[in-house]
Amino acid sequence: MKGLAFLGIGKVGVIDKPIPRPGVNDAVVRTTASLICTSDVHNVRGTIPIPEGQFLGHESVGIVDQVGANVSHFKPGDRVAVCAITPCGRCDNCQRGYTSQCGGLLGAYQFGPRRDGNLAEYFVVNDADFNLVRIPQGLSDEMAVYTTDMLTTGIAAAENAEIPVGGSVAIFAQGPVGLCATMGARLLGAGLIIAVESKPDRQRLAMRFGADAVVDPSRGRTVEEIVEMTDGVGVDSAIEALGHPETFANCIRVTRPGGVISNVGYHGEAGNFLQIPLAEFGLGMGDKTIRTALCPGGRERLSRLMQLLQRGRIDPTPLTTHRFSFAEVERAFHMMETKEDNIIKPLITY
Amino acid sequence: MKGLAFLGIGKVGVIDKPIPRPGVNDAVVRTTASLICTSDVHNVRGTIPIPEGQFLGHESVGIVDQVGANVSHFKPGDRVAVCAITPCGRCDNCQRGYTSQCGGLLGAYQFGPRRDGNLAEYFVVNDADFNLVRIPQGLSDEMAVYTTDMLTTGIAAAENAEIPVGGSVAIFAQGPVGLCATMGARLLGAGLIIAVESKPDRQRLAMRFGADAVVDPSRGRTVEEIVEMTDGVGVDSAIEALGHPETFANCIRVTRPGGVISNVGYHGEAGNFLQIPLAEFGLGMGDKTIRTALCPGGRERLSRLMQLLQRGRIDPTPLTTHRFSFAEVERAFHMMETKEDNIIKPLITY
Amino acid sequence: MKGLAFLGIGKVGVIDKPIPRPGVNDAVVRTTASLICTSDVHNVRGTIPIPEGQFLGHESVGIVDQVGANVSHFKPGDRVAVCAITPCGRCDNCQRGYTSQCGGLLGAYQFGPRRDGNLAEYFVVNDADFNLVRIPQGLSDEMAVYTTDMLTTGIAAAENAEIPVGGSVAIFAQGPVGLCATMGARLLGAGLIIAVESKPDRQRLAMRFGADAVVDPSRGRTVEEIVEMTDGVGVDSAIEALGHPETFANCIRVTRPGGVISNVGYHGEAGNFLQIPLAEFGLGMGDKTIRTALCPGGRERLSRLMQLLQRGRIDPTPLTTHRFSFAEVERAFHMMETKEDNIIKPLITY
Amino acid sequence: MKGLAFLGIGKVGVIDKPIPRPGVNDAVVRTTASLICTSDVHNVRGTIPIPEGQFLGHESVGIVDQVGANVSHFKPGDRVAVCAITPCGRCDNCQRGYTSQCGGLLGAYQFGPRRDGNLAEYFVVNDADFNLVRIPQGLSDEMAVYTTDMLTTGIAAAENAEIPVGGSVAIFAQGPVGLCATMGARLLGAGLIIAVESKPDRQRLAMRFGADAVVDPSRGRTVEEIVEMTDGVGVDSAIEALGHPETFANCIRVTRPGGVISNVGYHGEAGNFLQIPLAEFGLGMGDKTIRTALCPGGRERLSRLMQLLQRGRIDPTPLTTHRFSFAEVERAFHMMETKEDNIIKPLITY
Repeated sequence: MKGLAFLGIGKVGVIDKPIPRPGVNDAVVRTTASLICTSDVHNVRGTIPIPEGQFLGHESVGIVDQVGANVSHFKPGDRVAVCAITPCGRCDNCQRGYTSQCGGLLGAYQFGPRRDGNLAEYFVVNDADFNLVRIPQGLSDEMAVYTTDMLTTGIAAAENAEIPVGGSVAIFAQGPVGLCATMGARLLGAGLIIAVESKPDRQRLAMRFGADAVVDPSRGRTVEEIVEMTDGVGVDSAIEALGHPETFANCIRVTRPGGVISNVGYHGEAGNFLQIPLAEFGLGMGDKTIRTALCPGGRERLSRLMQLLQRGRIDPTPLTTHRFSFAEVERAFHMMETKEDNIIKPLITY
Repeated sequence: MKGLAFLGIGKVGVIDKPIPRPGVNDAVVRTTASLICTSDVHNVRGTIPIPEGQFLGHESVGIVDQVGANVSHFKPGDRVAVCAITPCGRCDNCQRGYTSQCGGLLGAYQFGPRRDGNLAEYFVVNDADFNLVRIPQGLSDEMAVYTTDMLTTGIAAAENAEIPVGGSVAIFAQGPVGLCATMGARLLGAGLIIAVESKPDRQRLAMRFGADAVVDPSRGRTVEEIVEMTDGVGVDSAIEALGHPETFANCIRVTRPGGVISNVGYHGEAGNFLQIPLAEFGLGMGDKTIRTALCPGGRERLSRLMQLLQRGRIDPTPLTTHRFSFAEVERAFHMMETKEDNIIKPLITY
Repeated sequence: MKGLAFLGIGKVGVIDKPIPRPGVNDAVVRTTASLICTSDVHNVRGTIPIPEGQFLGHESVGIVDQVGANVSHFKPGDRVAVCAITPCGRCDNCQRGYTSQCGGLLGAYQFGPRRDGNLAEYFVVNDADFNLVRIPQGLSDEMAVYTTDMLTTGIAAAENAEIPVGGSVAIFAQGPVGLCATMGARLLGAGLIIAVESKPDRQRLAMRFGADAVVDPSRGRTVEEIVEMTDGVGVDSAIEALGHPETFANCIRVTRPGGVISNVGYHGEAGNFLQIPLAEFGLGMGDKTIRTALCPGGRERLSRLMQLLQRGRIDPTPLTTHRFSFAEVERAFHMMETKEDNIIKPLITY
Repeated sequence: MKGLAFLGIGKVGVIDKPIPRPGVNDAVVRTTASLICTSDVHNVRGTIPIPEGQFLGHESVGIVDQVGANVSHFKPGDRVAVCAITPCGRCDNCQRGYTSQCGGLLGAYQFGPRRDGNLAEYFVVNDADFNLVRIPQGLSDEMAVYTTDMLTTGIAAAENAEIPVGGSVAIFAQGPVGLCATMGARLLGAGLIIAVESKPDRQRLAMRFGADAVVDPSRGRTVEEIVEMTDGVGVDSAIEALGHPETFANCIRVTRPGGVISNVGYHGEAGNFLQIPLAEFGLGMGDKTIRTALCPGGRERLSRLMQLLQRGRIDPTPLTTHRFSFAEVERAFHMMETKEDNIIKPLITY
C-alpha cells in the first residue's frame, strides 16, 4: 500500500509498505477520503519528532478491512471515521476524562508521531472499539472526514470558551480550526462573534459560518477594536486558533474580568514560552481562566458531531477549497506548505 | 479618629481624620481588631496607586457604629467582619458572579486604593447589606478577622485548584496566604499536599496545617522533587501563592496533563509579563487550565467560613506571630516590611 | 392609573389606583407593552395566594417615569424591560447565585403575589439597579417583552438540561415556555430536538423554532416513540414545560442513564406530590439528575438575551397570536383562560 | 473453589465450582478479604434478579492469579482491589463518563447479577486494566476492601451533594454507606454535618466519623429539627443513604431553595415510585437539584481513595464490627440479614 511519508526535515514523498495486520484491539481501515492538516506541515518542519519513513496524516475515513480478535463493535465492511486522536480508554488520564493525554502529555496523538498516519491507502486504528465511529447512511465521506479533527477541535474550542448564552467571543485567526470555532460559537449560542482575520476569503467564510463582525489584524488595532465593539468592556471569551504568542497575549487583553481564554492553537513554533500580559490579567487576580485542548475524540463524541451534520446544523464543506486524487497527494501537501491559491482544506479521495 | 496612612512612596504614618458619616448604603464600623497584609506593603512601594493621606489596611473586624438609611440587615452594636473586597452586588460583573471584579478589573478592592482602609479606629463599608457579616457569639475577634482576607483567599485558591478527592496538590510558598491554601487543600479532601517553602518556621506551620511533605526551593530541584513524589506523573493541581514569575512557571511544570494551576499570588512586582513554559504546557494542547482569583467576599461566603471556625474544622490563629496595640501600628507595619523576627501576621487590637 | 386586578378566586377586572411613588431603591415605569402569562391564570384560580385588589401581570416593558434616591444606573425616559422575577441582589440566596429564590422559596416572584403586577399603566420595580435593563435602540417593545419571562425561562430550561453538543433532547409540551425551550435547545447546539405536542398549530411552531420531530401524546405512545427515535437508548435530556405529574414522570422514563431532566413546568395544580418512576430512575442509582428553575432575571442576563434578538439568532414574535389595546385587557385575559382561537401569547399595548 | 451462592429467593449456601479461566481482557483474582453488603441481602430477597447458583458478593480484594492475553498493566502476584462496579471503559455510557451505567442502566453492576460475585475463593474481573488497582504496600486488606464499595459510594454521595465549603448537610441513615457519606462530607469541607439515625451505636460512629449533631428520627420531628438547626433556612445539601420513600421526601423537605439532594440509597423495595413533595420543591421551580449515583469505580478513582487511607485522612475500619473466616460465611450472611448484635460490616478472610 502507498502512503505519504516523512522523509527527513522538510521532505515528504509517497512510499510503499505492506498492508498492516491488526493487533488484538486494532482495526485496519481502507481509506476512502482524507484531509491534510497544517500540523502535518509543522511536523515536517521538525516541530514534533516523527521517525523517518513514517506515514503522515490523521484526518481520514474509510471502510473497515480487518479487525483484531478483541474488537467486538465493528466488522469488515463498516464505513467508519476515526478521530485524529486515538486514546486507549483505560489508562489513568483516560479514566480522568483527559483522553487526549492518553498515557502522557499529548499521548493520544498517535497517527504520525507514534504510528503510521492515515494519508495512506490503509491504516491501523488502536483500540478500535473506543475510537471507530460508524458514518450514518446518507452522510458523505467529505462531511464525515471533517469530524476527525477540524470540527471536534473547533467545537471544543467553543465549548472550553464557556461563552454565556448571548455572550460575546473573539476568535483569533480564521484558518480551518478558527473557522470551525466560529461555527462552534454560533452553534453554542454566542450573541456576538468577532472573527480576527486579514485574508479576505477567510473573512468571507467567517461571516458565512456565523461571525457577526471581522477585525483585520493588519490594521494594528485588534485589541482596541474588539474592546470598542463591546462598549469598552471586553469580550466574555476569546479563542486562540493560530498558535502565536502575540495572538495568545491579545486573547488575554481583549477578555473582560472573569473571562475565559480557550486555546486550541498549536504553539509548536512559538519558542519556549507564551507570555501573559500582567496588567490585563489583573496582576494574576482578575478571575480570568485559560483553558487548553487537543482534539477530543472517541466514538461517542464523534457520533454527536455527525448528528449535527446529518440534521444540517453545520456544514463544513465550504472549507474544501481543493480536491485531489491520492495520486496527487504530494502536490496537495506542497500547496498546504505554501498556502498558495488561498487553499484552506484539500480533500483527497482514493 | 486615627489611622495608618500612606504618605508617599515608602512612607506611612498615623494621622488623624474626622469620624466618617455613612452614605445611604454604608455602615461605619468602630474597629476592634486588624491584621496587616503584605499587599499593603506592596502598595506602599507603589504597586497599586493610592492617594496620599489615604488610610491603609483591609483586614479588620469591629462593632457597627452607624448605618445609612438604606441598610436594613444591620444596626449599631452588631459585631461584624467585612471582607477586604467589598462588591456592590448590582453591577454587571457582580451579577455574573465575579464580585471581586465589581465595576471593573479588581474593582471591589476598595479599602486603600478607592477609599480609606481599615487600619484605623473607624471605617466605612460600602453596600453594607451585601458585605457585613455578623460574628457568631463565642468566636473571637482574632479568629473572625482571618476570614476577611487570608482564609477566603487561601480557601478560594484550593477551590479553584479543583483537586480531585484524594488527589495531589503542590502549594508554592507558605506565607500567610499559602498556609491558608494548605489548610484549604486539607479541608477539601486532597490526598497528597506538598508545600514548597524554604523557611523552617513556615515549613513547620505548613505541616501543622495539613501538608504531607515539604519541598525546599533553596535546593534548586523543586520541579524534579515534586514530580518524583508523584511517581513521575506530576500533581493534579498547583497553587501559586507567592506572586513570582518563576514560581508561576513551575506551577505549570509540576502539573500533570489535564491539571489545574490556581493563582492567588499578587504579581504586582513581576514586570509586565508572566511566562508559560510551552513544553510542559503541551504546546498549548495539554488540557491544562490556569485559574485566578481575588479574595472572594460577601456575607454569605464569610458566614460559611465562620461556621468552619466555630466547629473547629480549621484554626488559623497559629499564623498570629505578633500582637500589638493600635498605638504600635507603625512598628507592626515596619516589621511586615522587613519580615524581621519571622513575622507572619501581626494582630492589632484597639 | 388603571390595571387588571385579582378580585377573588376566578374573578379579575380593571380597577383604578393612584400612580405609585418609588421607594429609595425602586423605579416606577410607565408601561408600553405587556404579555399575559398562563401563570396569572393559575393564580386567579388560587394556586398562589394573591391579595384581593392586587394587579396581575409580570411581563411588561416601558419607560422609566421616576427613580428612587438610591438608583444610580437609570433615569426617567430610559426605555427598559424588567424580568418577571425581581431579586434584591443582596440576600443570602442572591449571594449564593439563586436569585429567583430571593429571601426564600420563590421569593423573587414579586409582581402579583408580593406587590402590584404590571398589567397596569404604571408599575414599581424593586432594586431597580439590579433589575432594569435598557432596551437597545432598534429592538421593538414586542421583541423585548419576550425576554421578561418566556425567553429567559425557556432558555434556562435548555441550559439546565445540559444537552451535550449534538446530543438529543425531548421537550414536553409546546406552550409558550416549551416553544422557547425548543428555541433554546436549538440555540445551544442540540443535535436532535423532539417536541411533544398534540395541537397542530403548536406542532408547526415547534418545527419552525427548531424541532426536528414531533411526538403527538394523544397517540398514547410518547415514551416508546421517543425511545425508538434514539435507537432504544433514550434522550440525553428531557425538559418538562407543562407542569403535569405524568409528563414529569415521562421525562424520567425517556432519558438515558446519566441523563438530565430539566423542569420549568409550574406544578401548581398537580396535587401534593410529583412521582419518580423507580425502574427508569435506576432504583435511585441511574446517575440521572433532576434540575428545576424559576425564570432567572437580572440586567446582565436580560442584556445577553437582547443581544440574541438584535443579531437575529432567535425571533419569538411568532408566539404573538393576538394583539390588544390595554382597553381590551379583560377580553385578552379571558382568552388566556379559555385558550380559545388557539391563542398562544396576546400582546397588550398601551 | 468455594463461594457463597444464591440458591433461590431467600436461600444462600456455599457451593463448589471449578476455578475460572480469564477471558482475553480479564483477570482471575484469588480472594484474601471480603465484606458483605446489604444489597446482597436485598438481592437474595429478589430485588434484582440473579441466576440460581451464581455466587454473591462484590466487595473483595486479593492476589492476581491469572491474566488474559490482552491485560498489560497487571500480572500474577499483584495485590489488588476491584470496585464492586466494573465498567468496560469503551461503550457509549463509559465514554460519556457514566461508567456505572456501562452498556445500559446499572450495567456495570456485574458481580452477582451478571457473573459470579466475589464472596468466593477466586473471581473473574472483566476489563482488568480498567478495573484493577494495586494496593499500596503497608495498606491492610481490611482498609483496602472498604474502597471497593462503601467508601467510593459514600464519598460520591458527598461529592454529588455539592456542599459549599463550610456549608450544611443532612445525611439520612447511618448504615455503612451513610457513615461513609458522613466521612465524605467531613473530608470535603462541610461546616455543619447532621446525621439522621436512631440506633445509638450508629449515632456514636457518626459522631466519630465527623458528624456535628445527630437527629433521631424515632422522635418524629426530623424535618423540623433539621430546619431549626439551620435557623429556619434548611440545609445546603441532603444525602439519602437509606433507600426509603419517606426519607427521600424528607431530603427535599429539609433542603433550602437552590439546595442539592444526593441519592445513594437503593430503592429496590420502595414500590414503583418515589415521591417529591411539591410545596418544598417550590412547585417545581425552587432551583433544587436531585442527583443519583451508583458506586463509581475504576483504577484511577480507587487509587485516590487509597491515598486518603494511606495518609490517615479517613479510617473506615471502625465499621468492621465482626470478623469471620470464609468457612463461617453463611453465618456472617445470616447476621447481615437479621442485623443482630448491631452488626455493621463483617470482614471475611480466606
